[in-house]
Amino acid sequence: MLKLNFEKGNGLLPAIVQDHASRKVLMLAFVNPESWEKTLETGEAHYWSRTRQEIWHKGGTSGHVQKIKEIYADCDDDTLLFIVEQVGGAACHTGHESCFHKKVDRSGDYSVVGNKIFDPEKVYKK
Amino acid sequence: MLKLNFEKGNGLLPAIVQDHASRKVLMLAFVNPESWEKTLETGEAHYWSRTRQEIWHKGGTSGHVQKIKEIYADCDDDTLLFIVEQVGGAACHTGHESCFHKKVDRSGDYSVVGNKIFDPEKVYKK
Repeated sequence: MLKLNFEKGNGLLPAIVQDHASRKVLMLAFVNPESWEKTLETGEAHYWSRTRQEIWHKGGTSGHVQKIKEIYADCDDDTLLFIVEQVGGAACHTGHESCFHKKVDRSGDYSVVGNKIFDPEKVYKK
Repeated sequence: MLKLNFEKGNGLLPAIVQDHASRKVLMLAFVNPESWEKTLETGEAHYWSRTRQEIWHKGGTSGHVQKIKEIYADCDDDTLLFIVEQVGGAACHTGHESCFHKKVDRSGDYSVVGNKIFDPEKVYKK
């Protein structure tokens, strides 16, 4: 049985989320023991929202849930990798497929890359 | 100019590292402002070692540096994604390509997947 090291991050572990088809890294979120158990039980990604201080069923509002395809833990059991099917095709609240859509150049400047998959105005206010 | 939110994580930001060729997620590490600047300047990944409390030029001991191909920041500027060429073909100190080599099943058990690319005894004790 895997024993995750929740102590290291004061009860939270970072979870990297990667799309199983595009292989893009979609986002980073945090899990606590309860959201970890819910993820295993339901097969859909659950996180701990540091902002709202509550369990966050990703896609609970937008319908854009993340169906778990594979889960990996790292060598020292303090980081997780969720390989998911991203329902709706976009993980970011901005409507982009990935939260990582600011491409940084060597000078430290950035440009936004990629198109929006959905209009957040429509998805979150329906 | 990108303004990273170092305050949120008490001076440190998580950086996800992905291989540009295999598209595997290799590891997660942390950067502080100094290691971030060194990464941009040199084109090789530099982190902050939380264990040793010092700047960590990844590959400085093993020769397995990470050459930066692309860098992305996320939507709220508190997480980075480094797309790298992993010299030596393996990022993990265990010799595995990826630190994420413990595959977790729905019951919470895990099995180690993938072969070791190098023998850590030889790489770190030469």
